[in-house]
Amino acid sequence: MARSRLSFEAYFQGIRSGNKLILSKAITLIESKLEQDRPLANQLINALLPYSGQSIRIGITGVPGAGKSTFIEAFGEYITAGNKKIAVLAIDPSSKISGGSILGDKTRMDALSRNPLAFIRPSPAGKEVGGVANKTLESIILCEAAGFEVIVIETVGVGQSETMVKNMVDFFMLLVLTGAGDELQGIKRGIMEMADGIVINKADGDNIAKAGLTRKQFESTLHLFPPPESEWAVPVMTCSSLEKTGIAEIREMLNAYKTSTQINGYWDSKRQAQKLNWMTRNLENLLLQSVFSDPGFKKELRATEEKVRKNELNPNEAADYLFRLIGR
Amino acid sequence: MARSRLSFEAYFQGIRSGNKLILSKAITLIESKLEQDRPLANQLINALLPYSGQSIRIGITGVPGAGKSTFIEAFGEYITAGNKKIAVLAIDPSSKISGGSILGDKTRMDALSRNPLAFIRPSPAGKEVGGVANKTLESIILCEAAGFEVIVIETVGVGQSETMVKNMVDFFMLLVLTGAGDELQGIKRGIMEMADGIVINKADGDNIAKAGLTRKQFESTLHLFPPPESEWAVPVMTCSSLEKTGIAEIREMLNAYKTSTQINGYWDSKRQAQKLNWMTRNLENLLLQSVFSDPGFKKELRATEEKVRKNELNPNEAADYLFRLIGR
Repeated sequence: MARSRLSFEAYFQGIRSGNKLILSKAITLIESKLEQDRPLANQLINALLPYSGQSIRIGITGVPGAGKSTFIEAFGEYITAGNKKIAVLAIDPSSKISGGSILGDKTRMDALSRNPLAFIRPSPAGKEVGGVANKTLESIILCEAAGFEVIVIETVGVGQSETMVKNMVDFFMLLVLTGAGDELQGIKRGIMEMADGIVINKADGDNIAKAGLTRKQFESTLHLFPPPESEWAVPVMTCSSLEKTGIAEIREMLNAYKTSTQINGYWDSKRQAQKLNWMTRNLENLLLQSVFSDPGFKKELRATEEKVRKNELNPNEAADYLFRLIGR
Repeated sequence: MARSRLSFEAYFQGIRSGNKLILSKAITLIESKLEQDRPLANQLINALLPYSGQSIRIGITGVPGAGKSTFIEAFGEYITAGNKKIAVLAIDPSSKISGGSILGDKTRMDALSRNPLAFIRPSPAGKEVGGVANKTLESIILCEAAGFEVIVIETVGVGQSETMVKNMVDFFMLLVLTGAGDELQGIKRGIMEMADGIVINKADGDNIAKAGLTRKQFESTLHLFPPPESEWAVPVMTCSSLEKTGIAEIREMLNAYKTSTQINGYWDSKRQAQKLNWMTRNLENLLLQSVFSDPGFKKELRATEEKVRKNELNPNEAADYLFRLIGR
């Protein structure tokens, strides 16, 4: 496949001037699995890091059918109407086999994607779970350096995506449906305690009364959890992506979160912890790559795999043998 | 905390004689995070591996409310009624924060847990995602060496558990609810194409007709997917855990899967691939542990983290610096 890479200067200047096409090409560069792309990608990240960090990074998750895309469209419309720039990145480490969704990906966020103040980057197929977190964090850095003030990371479906996204954003939002009675059933275990805010979508028309009940139910359930480290009182809000109600309140709530956690220091300490995790993951990748890409080791690896296949060594013994070979 | 460890011989003989208490203690040993427990754990695994591999390893996943526990109870009753031994292991890498479920864990599979031919191991809390796969594979080895002929790995909820379980079992079963119309909505993206069989639960009473419709819907959806590597025609079956109908048919289907994939070689090649993955994960863990546990390196790591915290180094640069320090 022919690869067209730009020069460092072209990427850097393009991103700094907010050129969405070049931003998109730069994300493709950092997502590349080709080893020869990595030095340029690192150079770019290092050069852009000083211009990053100014956005609010919002993770959005939700049950299938909760209307994540329509919510993000309505939210993005509101943000851009205030002359702010919003970037939407999707994370989907799930669909390893076919790379496809069973319901088919409709063209998503159609209106927002045509908005000059919005940048939408769909989730690339076939990413490896291990590398997704770092690539997404690097994409966030690029978007911030391109002047995007609100970054939305959308989790698409299954996999470890929720925990991963929670660990790379400032605010983690759980979007749920208005319903009656069984709302809590559909929420995946462990998700609710991760949420910094719960938003009940589709609170419109006949649903408005029900939405109030749903909110009460979530509020009383939230009391069952220990208070979060952020000392932030997790709000339960209602909105309608259709009628564009509640969106302004959500934006205000996000601002309040930022202010409150900046005052108590949680905002910074979380961002620092995220940077340290990023460093550690990078270091681990470098270490493993350096071992596994060594030609001599590769040969030994193949020979040892053959022995495991033939049951001459068990996987534990084989790992020990290879480890001793590396001589650390 | 005081730790009571048995001798290698006591673990080995206890497991080989099918002693469930000692099996349970041995799983606690291999799940231990204490470094000093690892040599004994490895010795035990190595000694028991020749006695393992004879079971059918079944992964079961399903939407919340699909009735995984009641299905496994009914299935386990059927298996043990035929004088076969069944072990049930649960995987739950999700709830990192509080370690708890919002709905609370009821005492699960009560009747089965009292059955002398059944062994049920609930999911330990607070496990690290990275290590879960290997620990669970090692638990499978122990159960097999203790004579369990059917091993069920139950995924509990969220996280990367489905992909992980899919990669460690022979057969991956998706359990769904009888319903009408909206069945497919609740299925997490990427799950359906992972299934070797789909079982529609609660096909009883008024639900029987609906279950037939649900089955048709799944069958026609399955046609949208490419044929699996196993060349196995993924069946959609109905059952009632309450009325114990359809359970024998599921057991027969599992036998048919084993026969068919053993004939075409898929069964063995999958198990081999799983062993190689196990080896690689083990090797990676050994490598990273050896680096990160070195006292000199730890000191450098702390100092470098401090520089990242103070923004004197960015995470990429810090990782590069530490990597060069290790001198690989």
